[in-house]
Amino acid sequence: MSTETPPKEFERAPNHFTDRVGSPDWPLEAGRYRLVVSRACPWASRAVIVRRLLGLESALSMAVADPIQDERSWRFTLDPDGRDPVLGIRYLGEAYYAREPEYDGGISVPAIVDVPSGKLVSNDYPEITLNLEIDWAPLHRDGAPDLYPEPLRDEIDEVNDAVFREVNNGVYMAGFATRQRSYERVAHRLFERLDALEERLTDGRYLVGDTITEADIRLWVTLVRFDAVYHGHFKCNRRKLAEYPALWAYARDLFQTPGFGDTVNFDHITRHYYQVHRNINPTGIVPIGPDLRLWLTPHGREDLGGRPFGDGTPPGPVPPGETVPPIG
Amino acid sequence: MSTETPPKEFERAPNHFTDRVGSPDWPLEAGRYRLVVSRACPWASRAVIVRRLLGLESALSMAVADPIQDERSWRFTLDPDGRDPVLGIRYLGEAYYAREPEYDGGISVPAIVDVPSGKLVSNDYPEITLNLEIDWAPLHRDGAPDLYPEPLRDEIDEVNDAVFREVNNGVYMAGFATRQRSYERVAHRLFERLDALEERLTDGRYLVGDTITEADIRLWVTLVRFDAVYHGHFKCNRRKLAEYPALWAYARDLFQTPGFGDTVNFDHITRHYYQVHRNINPTGIVPIGPDLRLWLTPHGREDLGGRPFGDGTPPGPVPPGETVPPIG
Repeated sequence: MSTETPPKEFERAPNHFTDRVGSPDWPLEAGRYRLVVSRACPWASRAVIVRRLLGLESALSMAVADPIQDERSWRFTLDPDGRDPVLGIRYLGEAYYAREPEYDGGISVPAIVDVPSGKLVSNDYPEITLNLEIDWAPLHRDGAPDLYPEPLRDEIDEVNDAVFREVNNGVYMAGFATRQRSYERVAHRLFERLDALEERLTDGRYLVGDTITEADIRLWVTLVRFDAVYHGHFKCNRRKLAEYPALWAYARDLFQTPGFGDTVNFDHITRHYYQVHRNINPTGIVPIGPDLRLWLTPHGREDLGGRPFGDGTPPGPVPPGETVPPIG
Repeated sequence: MSTETPPKEFERAPNHFTDRVGSPDWPLEAGRYRLVVSRACPWASRAVIVRRLLGLESALSMAVADPIQDERSWRFTLDPDGRDPVLGIRYLGEAYYAREPEYDGGISVPAIVDVPSGKLVSNDYPEITLNLEIDWAPLHRDGAPDLYPEPLRDEIDEVNDAVFREVNNGVYMAGFATRQRSYERVAHRLFERLDALEERLTDGRYLVGDTITEADIRLWVTLVRFDAVYHGHFKCNRRKLAEYPALWAYARDLFQTPGFGDTVNFDHITRHYYQVHRNINPTGIVPIGPDLRLWLTPHGREDLGGRPFGDGTPPGPVPPGETVPPIG
């Protein structure tokens, strides 16, 4: 998602480019598209995780943007010569303008880009993971889990809706609020939702059914950032995640599951939030933060049963070139 | 202490007015002096607690400033007509200028003001509590504890020295740092000191000896603000106080001891820090913060023994007009 200085009060802009790979204009082809992400961004991280779990790494290559945008937004300054080696561009915005020369909206990740034409296909983050789960099925690895099982879709969508409004987006609305009353309203709602999720996850290992689904992925990308960023920077300080026994164990369980923690770069996360949002952190100082090694402590959630990958299997190792620094 | 926008890097200014009540110029007299404080300010809160513990409330009256300073600093906007009813002034600064018309330094609390002349006697916060403990002894209540026992003074001073540099002032240096390296250095030192204090307080109920002393008061005023303010606002986020079992129980023990928690106004504390320091919190939004009712939960520290007031007794009830809002 775009993270330029938000308007007051904060409203998330609708996504402009909503095409699906697998439609007539954009046929599914291994190697044809590139997923552009920032490891800082929770919305992009959903797609990073889904791509890993489904074993789409070789079919859909990935570009990782610098966690610090400049005035032209997301850029490939982590790559040699500051250019994405596959797309050959320096800024993600170039793919947006290739698609629509007159575009003047925000530049956001995740983005799916058509490599041959260099054009953006989609920046529609809520749809990109569903697209990977449904339309990309012919390219899934053997043993890929079903992250969006048909019989559970209504329940998953319902959970996702509340989690989006009150948790995923709630933390941003709290952090960027400029009026005390708006802030307090969203902050209280956020913690009421976390209280309810704590209860739900006390007895169930995962949010819906007994396997990992899209619902878990969407909640988890916010939880993994909670104590490192949202608690302080976004003033979501009623409790730390670490003060919710079930949520914290649930978050650690997923962190330690292949496809989750192995996609997380805490350095990208903390530098992005604390250095980019100068409107709420003028000094740009990045806190030392909680001890990340706690993410690796035992969680005991196996006792709840559940089958993480259902009838499938865990993903294999992270491909070379896509590893993240170990924590601790 | 003054809390105007600090210089870079943050350095605490020396106190300018260091006279002692009980010296030839300022003889000890019940009712002659007025203690001016903000309940937001940890340095002032030391004096508020010591005054309560020693039963000096009727001998030394107290003025409570608005937690939000304006460009003329601490002011009496909580009082009718915005004037302190005893000193008759609108700004604490008037007492500074009565003492020294050409003064152009900061205006800080705590301050001792001579009521007849309206002149500031001292704003020397490290000495004010010692002054109350030593020179004001003839006016202490029956059963007042000895907060600075002669045989323990060296040890108390030694603890105070480290606590001042790395904890009391450490949180400010972390919060106002403008360079990443300075911030990290002081933040790591702060938590190393808290780790050491955690160990010290695991077996001992109080910091020095087996009774409450000046050392406990100086540490506690920072601890009571830690999770509400310093953890997020000052980026002291390696751990919450609530994540240190011994320190958190120690802090609750003192909170629940007469003379400590009954002096604390969390509303003053949070509004002061979050609304005054616009240089680090431009929106002025005050977080909902952790659940304050946790301060009232059992602490179990009685099992460590100790004699809170030594050979003395607990202070009586808070005088009318000096009560703080109950928490929760």
